[in-house]
Order: sequence, then structure tokens, then C-alpha cells
Amino acid sequence: MFKVIHKDKKTNARTGLIKTAHGTVHTPFFMAVATNATVKTLSVQDLFDAQTEIIVSNTYHVFVRPGMEVIKKAGGLHKFMSWPRPILTDSGGYQIFSLALLRKVTDEGVKFQSHVDGMAHFFSPEDIISLQKILKSDIIMPLDECVHYPCQRDYAEIATRRTTLWAQRSKLAFNNIVSKTKGKTSAKDKQLLFGIIQGATFKDLRKQSLDALIDMDFDGYSIGGLSVGEPDNLMQDILSYTIDFIPQDKPRYTMGVGTPEQIVESVEKGVDMFDTCVPTRYGRNGTAFTSEGKITLTNARFIKDFSPIDKNCDCYACKNYSRAYLRHLCNAKEILGLKLVSYHNVYFFMKLMRDIRQAIEKDRFGEFKKDFLKKIKKDEN
Amino acid sequence: MFKVIHKDKKTNARTGLIKTAHGTVHTPFFMAVATNATVKTLSVQDLFDAQTEIIVSNTYHVFVRPGMEVIKKAGGLHKFMSWPRPILTDSGGYQIFSLALLRKVTDEGVKFQSHVDGMAHFFSPEDIISLQKILKSDIIMPLDECVHYPCQRDYAEIATRRTTLWAQRSKLAFNNIVSKTKGKTSAKDKQLLFGIIQGATFKDLRKQSLDALIDMDFDGYSIGGLSVGEPDNLMQDILSYTIDFIPQDKPRYTMGVGTPEQIVESVEKGVDMFDTCVPTRYGRNGTAFTSEGKITLTNARFIKDFSPIDKNCDCYACKNYSRAYLRHLCNAKEILGLKLVSYHNVYFFMKLMRDIRQAIEKDRFGEFKKDFLKKIKKDEN
Repeated sequence: MFKVIHKDKKTNARTGLIKTAHGTVHTPFFMAVATNATVKTLSVQDLFDAQTEIIVSNTYHVFVRPGMEVIKKAGGLHKFMSWPRPILTDSGGYQIFSLALLRKVTDEGVKFQSHVDGMAHFFSPEDIISLQKILKSDIIMPLDECVHYPCQRDYAEIATRRTTLWAQRSKLAFNNIVSKTKGKTSAKDKQLLFGIIQGATFKDLRKQSLDALIDMDFDGYSIGGLSVGEPDNLMQDILSYTIDFIPQDKPRYTMGVGTPEQIVESVEKGVDMFDTCVPTRYGRNGTAFTSEGKITLTNARFIKDFSPIDKNCDCYACKNYSRAYLRHLCNAKEILGLKLVSYHNVYFFMKLMRDIRQAIEKDRFGEFKKDFLKKIKKDEN
Repeated sequence: MFKVIHKDKKTNARTGLIKTAHGTVHTPFFMAVATNATVKTLSVQDLFDAQTEIIVSNTYHVFVRPGMEVIKKAGGLHKFMSWPRPILTDSGGYQIFSLALLRKVTDEGVKFQSHVDGMAHFFSPEDIISLQKILKSDIIMPLDECVHYPCQRDYAEIATRRTTLWAQRSKLAFNNIVSKTKGKTSAKDKQLLFGIIQGATFKDLRKQSLDALIDMDFDGYSIGGLSVGEPDNLMQDILSYTIDFIPQDKPRYTMGVGTPEQIVESVEKGVDMFDTCVPTRYGRNGTAFTSEGKITLTNARFIKDFSPIDKNCDCYACKNYSRAYLRHLCNAKEILGLKLVSYHNVYFFMKLMRDIRQAIEKDRFGEFKKDFLKKIKKDEN
């Protein structure tokens, strides 16, 4: 299901293909985040226009609203949200820990109350697999325990051990469903299961976690617990350490990473998959990514700036609207403004990934990275 | 600039063309409302897709934000908002009376404080003309005094007299600018000036108002002060009375009207132009117009309804998304939901106007009206 196409001659960056039930995607890729079964502000056509090949959604969020009965009746998440291309679903573990109320974590699973209606629920690792079977996501993430930074050693040990235990139970549950439904399912139903490496900022725990997961042989490996409040150099250090132990023939995913800078740094180390709500969240706040760094459109300096967000961008927003107009819309809290900037940002991230893949295939990722980082240093923030 | 193309044989409904600086538009038409220089939630492409020929914006709103300096520097409102087709601008008098703070109205004009930043301003009728010259709107509305329902006879008299006085001063200011700029302006700068008939619900005041305006010979006539809280039958009665005195060869415009029912009723009487924020305002509340009446998508009955908003509609929202999905989006306050329902509603109104024009040209407007009203009686509200 994963094939490395080209390795950059001077770095660990690589291009590849992941074959999923709903289509093949080019790595390294970035997934826009469709938390509530929608990439915030964007239609499916907008995502097509931005050349989006795969998006990420969230089991916890979809479970609490609209609920699994609705998704089941729709025939899965793709049909519900009218998105025909691949979807990766996170377990939502991270969201339960950060968003849900009155949660209690034991080895059995996690008890919580929905942040939407306060209803009490319990998720075991097996539940999370079953729910993602109903979602029909192309790539499934197991339940894990993600800790925030900084995390005490003793709690990091507990969370790492628990994540490993849950990974075993998830794998077993996944295999059971696969063998039970053998012969009854079509290629459209084939799902991939990834393992999530935890261990906070402790290298020995990271090693324990990944060794155990690699023994279980997952379809890909996610490096979890990054971008959770730690300094950027510590994140890159843990990433560098961890990634070297992941088999070359498996896709590597850094969950929740990151900014354009972090993506470029991580691709260089050999990461294949990214996701973050940064482009849409920043977009809704009027901050736009450009080839010369971020700009905050609500700033007074744009009041009579009739140039596009980014003169090097050919997205709909840049081809049709000025900074002055978008500034006005964002200041007036007009939905069109939030949408156009979000759209531009997603387009910018997608274009960045295409540029990255092209640079790798020309064995010039190092130069690309240097140029890119130099240009965006003009960043106003 | 206005030409009647076809008069329905059995009603007063008619089709026609209005030629403006930015293009020719088919009457009867409906204008989506671009209060803050944006039809709420919709891009210019969305408006094109809905086959929108003309939109309405608002002098007061644009004046307070982003301000005339910005619009002037942009080269007018069309360029600022990237909308190349005709724009009618209301004076914003109605908004000053309903939205601005600490207003004081005298024969000289209106003193008010901006609802955005509290800044004090004064608009004379001449100012309103000058501002709309800067906006470069295709159709200009003069400052008028619109009263709410119910209105005492004595105040209605004052407001009617003042509206007539302001109309004279507006016409004079408009003609002065036209003669001063003669030979220096292109066809793209040619603007049309309408008169606004007031008189509240008093027929003799309506007659006085319209007689005075017709003497001044405006490019078109708006029947103002409708849809301001009066019962529907009273509105239709005042409209019927007033419209008969407007010259046949001038376009007639009912400002702020209305619902699909009101539009159909008014077209029958010979109205050519409509505007209201109903489609976008209802859209943002999750209420959709359909060929079988309005539906409120957030209702529980749509939770597993995977049919489109309107099976007879071929808009992007109806071709791609289900009621269940839109319900979910609206419930979760997701911007995509508010946008898709707004888009559908604007599309619905535009399609209604196309259907109306077609029915008139086939001399079957009466049957069309009967069928249309019968079908939408299924309206859930």
C-alpha cells in the first residue's frame, strides 16, 4: 500500500504513493482538518480546486455530532460529507483529553462527557476501531494517550505503556473485523491501520513505544505527542531520534504538525504525512500565509493595499480580491473574508507540498528548503 | 435606458431591460443585498453561478466601513469588491434611521453617529449624491425619510414633504455633477438616478409624493416605506394604488420587498425591481426556500434525510449535499452550512425571477402565480 518513489540524494526527504480504498495519494502530503466532517469554511469543490488529495477527520467529533447512526445511514463519512477522496480519521483521543468533560482514563479505556451535550460515554480501544469501521475511513488511527508538554517522567511511562497496550488491542480488534468480513467486503472497504508512537520527550520511552509497535506491524506509523507545547528544537530533536527507527517501507506521519517551517524541516527528516488546523484557523483570524511569510490582513497597513494576498499565488482569492478588500471583510467579520483567507491558506499548504515533492524528485530538496525558509523569514510576526 | 419588452396579456406583469453603465439587466429582477460590499457568505463566482445580473449595496454602510477614501482609491465599488456587473446603491437613509446612533433629522439632512465606531457625521441630500458618484454605482438612490409602521398622520406629512424636498436637491446636485463632468466621463461612468415615493399608508400623501417626483422626471421610481411592519394586505393595497400612477416607461422598484410570495404578487401589479436580505439572512439561520415552501434545516426531522434541499433545484448545494449534512453543519454553526444554504436561497430567488420572466413572455403569468403560490403553501412555517 505504500511505495517510495524517489529518495532525495542529499537528505532523508522522499516522495511516495499511498494506495487507499478511495484513491492513491502522493507523499509527502498535508491533510486539511475536517473536524466536524467539514474543512472549516470550504466546500468539496474548494478542496478539489486546491488539489487536495486526502483530508483528516475525527472520530470523537463525528461521534458526538451528528452521531454514528447518521453516518451509518449515510453509508460512511465520505458519503455523508460528499467527499469522494481518501479520509484519514484520528481516534479523537487527543480531543477527548483536551475538549471533553470529566474524563477518566484507565487501561480499559476512557470515560468522558461530550463537550456538545454533556452526555456520558465510554470508549475502549476496540470501540474506536469499530467506530472507524462505520466511518469507512481509508486510514484508521487507534486510541492512544497523548500527554501535554511538559510531562513528568512517571506519567509519561504510564501513558506510553497504556498506548502500547491499546495498540495491541486495536490491532487485534481490527484483524478480527477483517477476518470476519472476509469475502463480504469490496476494495472500497479496505482500511489501513496505523500505530501511534508516544513517549513524550523521553527518548527511551519513544524507543520502547516504537519497538513494540513495529513488532505488531502496522500499515504506517504516526509520531504522536509532538506540537503539544514543547519548544521547536526539542520537537525536531525527538522527531529526528524517533524517525530513524521507523522502517523505510512504511509511511511516517507527524500528527498535528505543523507550520510551513515545521513541515519543511520534518520532510527533510523523512516524514510523509502532516495535518494541522493552522491554515483554516489562521484564515478565520485573517492571517494569510504567503511566499514571503505570514501577513495579518486586519493590520492598518493593508487599508489601501490593492495587491493580492500573495503575488505568486494563483488561487481564486489571489486572482480576484485585494488585501484591502479582504481586510475590510475580515474587519467586518464577514464570512466571505474568513472563507477566502482560509481557502488561500489551504491552497498555499497544498502548493507547498507539490513544490516539496517536485524538489525531492529533482534531488534539490536542500536548496528548496533553504530558499523557502529564507523567503518566509520576512514574516511580519 | 429602460425598455418594456413584453406585457403579460392578462396582468400588469411585464418584462423589460434596463441599460446601465456596467451592463444590461433583465426585469423583473431581484437584487441580492451586499450591505458591507459583500453579499453575505458569497463570492463573486457564487453570484455568477446563481446567474445574478445586478446587486444592491448601501452608501451608509460602505461610508462607515471601509470608508470612502478606500473606495475612491480602489476606483469605485465595483473594483473594490471585484464585481463587474451593475450595482444599485441605496442611500442608506433607512439604515441611518434604523441602525445609527443619536440621529437628528432636519430639512438640512441627517446627523448621526456611526454604529461601527460612534463617529459623528452629517449627510445632506447632496452629500449622498456625491458619495454615490465616488461609489460609481449604476443606479443611485437619493436620501429619503422612511417611516415605520404605524406612523401618525402628522409625522407622515413631515417625512413626505422632506422626502420631496430632498428629491429636488438630489436631482439638482446630480444634474450639476453631470453637466460639470460632461465630456470628461466615459459610458462606464453614466449613472441613473431614481426617485423614492414615500407617504406611509396614506394614499393622498403617496399621490402628493409621486406627483412631485414625476414632475422632476427621474430615471426610475422606487416605492419606499413598504415592508416596514405593515400587514401584507395593506402593503399590497398601497402598492396597487401607487403603482398605477408611475409612468409605464419607467422602471418601478419596491425597496426591501420581499418574500417569494410578495415578489410574485408585486410582479403581477407591474413591479420591475426587488431587493431583500431574506435569502442570505434566512440562509444563515438554516432556513431554505424550496419549490414546496420553506424548510428549517435544523429541525430534527431532517437528521437522516439524505435528499437534497429541493429536488427541483440544480444549484451546487442541491446537487452535492444532503439535508442531513446541511442540518449537521448548521447545528454545529459551521460556516460551510451557512454559506451553502445562503447560496441555495439566492439561487432560488434568481431562478424564481427567470421563471417569472419566462411566464410573462408566454402570457401565462397568472397561471404561474397560482401554481407557484399553491405549491409553496406546503411551507412548514
